[in-house]
Amino acid sequence: MTGTPAEVRERFRAGLRVPTSGYCPGWTQANLLSLPKADAYDFLLFSQRNPKPCPVLDVSEPGQRSASIFSGDLSTDLPAYRVYRDGEFVDERSEVADLWREDLVTFLIGCSFTFETALLEAGVPVRHLDAGSNVPMYETNRECRPAGSLSGPLVVSMRPVPAELVATAVRVTSRYPAVHGAPVHIGSPELLGIADLATPDFGDAVEVRPGEIPVFWACGVTPQAAVMRSKPSFAIAHAPGHMAITDVRDAEFQIP
Amino acid sequence: MTGTPAEVRERFRAGLRVPTSGYCPGWTQANLLSLPKADAYDFLLFSQRNPKPCPVLDVSEPGQRSASIFSGDLSTDLPAYRVYRDGEFVDERSEVADLWREDLVTFLIGCSFTFETALLEAGVPVRHLDAGSNVPMYETNRECRPAGSLSGPLVVSMRPVPAELVATAVRVTSRYPAVHGAPVHIGSPELLGIADLATPDFGDAVEVRPGEIPVFWACGVTPQAAVMRSKPSFAIAHAPGHMAITDVRDAEFQIP
Repeated sequence: MTGTPAEVRERFRAGLRVPTSGYCPGWTQANLLSLPKADAYDFLLFSQRNPKPCPVLDVSEPGQRSASIFSGDLSTDLPAYRVYRDGEFVDERSEVADLWREDLVTFLIGCSFTFETALLEAGVPVRHLDAGSNVPMYETNRECRPAGSLSGPLVVSMRPVPAELVATAVRVTSRYPAVHGAPVHIGSPELLGIADLATPDFGDAVEVRPGEIPVFWACGVTPQAAVMRSKPSFAIAHAPGHMAITDVRDAEFQIP
Repeated sequence: MTGTPAEVRERFRAGLRVPTSGYCPGWTQANLLSLPKADAYDFLLFSQRNPKPCPVLDVSEPGQRSASIFSGDLSTDLPAYRVYRDGEFVDERSEVADLWREDLVTFLIGCSFTFETALLEAGVPVRHLDAGSNVPMYETNRECRPAGSLSGPLVVSMRPVPAELVATAVRVTSRYPAVHGAPVHIGSPELLGIADLATPDFGDAVEVRPGEIPVFWACGVTPQAAVMRSKPSFAIAHAPGHMAITDVRDAEFQIP
């Protein structure tokens, strides 16, 4: 969908509730996690120790409803939110303004949607974009490095890539370490503990055609998996695939 | 100097006190900052907000004398340390074992020495290596983004690069974002507030020859400048240029 980030955020604030893959191409999308200040050090350390799934792009001040890369309202301008209490997913809603707290620190975390534009430009098709669906995401059998009270499994997103384009997909996404970077795993989903690609833990299944290899990237839903495992008293996150659209261009995160 | 990281650390533990540029080529060197746990969140946030000067490679548990990328003793195995009390530089010593505290959190921060091997391989001369001296470092007039109680100026290291190789130096170092990455400034030291390249704030001056451009990279001494400005009650750091030699290969930090 076209429009500036501010325009698109306004539509989300007005109630539009859709996955954001393909929205505002060229503008960086971000995962959101808001935690009480008491848990903020542990999460920042968790992200430092797990930079592939948790590349932190920005951190708000406690209670702040915006961030330096997000001039909108963090509590209303995403298409959908998930609310966790003691690690329990208790609600999914289109805004969380009434739940905001003065001690909430918000983390904006890089999202693989950022490199999808670069993949398309390099001629690598992105199936879930063609299908108009959400990217499939899976919990894996790989553990993140714990930090303080936080631990949890690595969550990955998957894109089927034609075998002859896998190397291109690696090369292109390697250049975006701040948005998950190179794949963590290529082929052999069973080695990640994924029994069936057709039943993702988050998002929508996509077709994997003959001659295509499932390619797995670290996913910014990993923090939510850590919340579910580690049970902080309170947390707000984006609904998987329903991201924060920031005021920063993807090109800012390209290396070199 | 040749030898494994463990062997070289042992020599430093025994008292050898030299700048580490050129030591253990291929093995990653790191800046050290140890702060009381009470200041750790502010510093981790400072580093997230200032990733070019403060790329955190590893964080210890409180009181821990090693780290996952450093199997030696953090309190004895660097060639020299600086001790700060209330932001005041009070002592430089070859070890700090007796000053270690159970609440100290140690941050290991990427160092530009890592990309010097890559510069040499690309045919870019590194003057301070040829001269056998420490790299020159300068405080600048650029402010870091503050975080909590921490603020301070950007510190940079400088290498003179022949004009025809400046683009190569940018390209090569861009691939190492975890160790300061691309230069922050090329030429025109006066725009950084550096009045005289011959009088660095840290390290040794080097000759800038005709046809050479001074190229400036963000420097891991920046955290020490923040300590001096922000005055946490206690801090230990490496002596500038006298780094922690880790157990990780430089290649780990190369993108893509």
